[in-house]
Amino acid sequence: MGPHPAVAAIRLAVRRVLHDILIEHSADSPDSALRHVPRRTSAPGTAYERPTSPLVLVACSGGADSVALASALAFEAPKLGIRAGGITVDHGLQSGSDLRAEEVVQRMCELGLVPAESISVTVGREGGPEAAARDARYAALDAAADRHGATAILLGHTRDDQAETVLLGLARGSGIRSLSGMAAVSGADGRYRRPFLQLDRQTARKACMVQSLPVWDDPHNADPAYTRSRLRHEGLPALEKALGKGVVEALARTAQLSRDDADALDHWASLAEAGVRDDSGRLECAKLYALPPAVRRRILRRAAIQAGAPAGALFARHIEEVDRLITGWRGQGAINLPGKVVAQRQGGRLVIRQG
Amino acid sequence: MGPHPAVAAIRLAVRRVLHDILIEHSADSPDSALRHVPRRTSAPGTAYERPTSPLVLVACSGGADSVALASALAFEAPKLGIRAGGITVDHGLQSGSDLRAEEVVQRMCELGLVPAESISVTVGREGGPEAAARDARYAALDAAADRHGATAILLGHTRDDQAETVLLGLARGSGIRSLSGMAAVSGADGRYRRPFLQLDRQTARKACMVQSLPVWDDPHNADPAYTRSRLRHEGLPALEKALGKGVVEALARTAQLSRDDADALDHWASLAEAGVRDDSGRLECAKLYALPPAVRRRILRRAAIQAGAPAGALFARHIEEVDRLITGWRGQGAINLPGKVVAQRQGGRLVIRQG
Repeated sequence: MGPHPAVAAIRLAVRRVLHDILIEHSADSPDSALRHVPRRTSAPGTAYERPTSPLVLVACSGGADSVALASALAFEAPKLGIRAGGITVDHGLQSGSDLRAEEVVQRMCELGLVPAESISVTVGREGGPEAAARDARYAALDAAADRHGATAILLGHTRDDQAETVLLGLARGSGIRSLSGMAAVSGADGRYRRPFLQLDRQTARKACMVQSLPVWDDPHNADPAYTRSRLRHEGLPALEKALGKGVVEALARTAQLSRDDADALDHWASLAEAGVRDDSGRLECAKLYALPPAVRRRILRRAAIQAGAPAGALFARHIEEVDRLITGWRGQGAINLPGKVVAQRQGGRLVIRQG
Repeated sequence: MGPHPAVAAIRLAVRRVLHDILIEHSADSPDSALRHVPRRTSAPGTAYERPTSPLVLVACSGGADSVALASALAFEAPKLGIRAGGITVDHGLQSGSDLRAEEVVQRMCELGLVPAESISVTVGREGGPEAAARDARYAALDAAADRHGATAILLGHTRDDQAETVLLGLARGSGIRSLSGMAAVSGADGRYRRPFLQLDRQTARKACMVQSLPVWDDPHNADPAYTRSRLRHEGLPALEKALGKGVVEALARTAQLSRDDADALDHWASLAEAGVRDDSGRLECAKLYALPPAVRRRILRRAAIQAGAPAGALFARHIEEVDRLITGWRGQGAINLPGKVVAQRQGGRLVIRQG
């Protein structure tokens, strides 16, 4: 008898990602597990290099999603000659969080993950509590991966998390890039992988249950002070009630389609940019005018960021106002953008610079 | 003392659209109101052509949005030399709808709209009750515009309607075209105009109130049997509670940005398509592979529709499966698409045709 369908599903998702990692690892490194380096005895004058197998870490909070991920990694990695380890991050935001982190380490050890360790971080305040915790967490994970020479770090984000991320992006109203959610592969050198992005939260939960893996529910996830928590417990259920049960899947698919579309348009804008600058590198209004609005606005956005405007503070309405210097020219004055950047039209050229 | 801010807002919105209509009308027609055709006495042998002023109709249900629109059109049109008329469509779905339609005609007459008429339609069942009513309504409006020689038909959709439309599109999960909501200009020759797409429903309501214009609340709008009604009264308010009051504006801005992005990508796909066909017009897999996924999938979708697949039945997952013939080729068989269309890979070519 095979494993429970939920367990089979989480293992398949992890296996696929480990395969990808192995293929990339084999392309990158001369001592890959996949290359079947022939064992040879060391000859005088040649140092024998032992082929090392790649290490993949799982980021585990102790919640159902990441515990399911840890269990699947521990099961699948050895079959592919991959070493599996786990990291839990103690954000220090609740009393007793250190004890809980130790408990997660204990669980990861029981699953056979080596290393299995807890890292304490200090969460700042920048960008709000959620963003600050996230920044601290990723910094700690990056440091751990570097220290252990890990090839990849698996994250337990599910399709439900993806749907929430798309809605959070939608609320910004800043275009399709913000609708594209989380990438299956992200970070420096594609270090972060999200094997569960197509999998629903319920499957991860079920997989823990049938494997008798205890999980911990973070009270933050139900705290209405957090936008994501309100979305999860009120916004998304109400939307499902109005629009039907397929909403989560539709949002996740929207993320993927939007990401591909945004990538293609960014690519187009970067190709088109060279063609709209004059010999001295200034943007020519007539040439910008001839471009499709979607491409033109991306070039304007890039130019504003190059001039020093912080990307996070540059909204669609800023770019629209700059765009009107091209499409609705009636002699308007300079436009102030975030980061003390100023955009103005001068003799058929658009000048964007820090003022 | 000027008009109430709400009245000023609806008038400004209508004035802008009427200006656009006049400019286009003057470009199209030799007897335009804008061209100030000099009055001349008719000479022997030349027929005197009297310059006619363009006619703009408003589609008025008797609800607050369209009554506000009718009042603004009646106020603004004469100042620009435009004739203003109104049409109400009796869907015959509720008892007494004919009497109510007559009441709306009466109101339109009082506003000075000529013609002011009611048209009865028979609503079919195709595509569900909302789609069937919409199809019948637009057919009637098109016929009325043709009969009266109207230049444009104004529709009272507000920013709130737009936000709902974006969410309905999001629930389909079929990409950014379905997120682009309603266009400010649509229909054959850009006949339909939506002056209130940037205006919130509350402003339209307020404008009716301060002008003492009685309005009628369609009970359908509060009937939970209708998806849009559930969205309006439950889904969107819950989303606003979770994400903040700016959600409606963010959704409306998303619509505009998505529309521009979708237009640009469609344009790109149509340019790229010629380059990926061989001498006999077949799609070359190697050339398709080299395109960005967003462009490639649009070309595949166009090819499937050209082969006879109905656009409305062709979902993102169909196109993804066809795309895997290019990106994940492992000898898979023919793929069945809606409309008995079959896609298969043959000797490095992709063949999509009705089977």
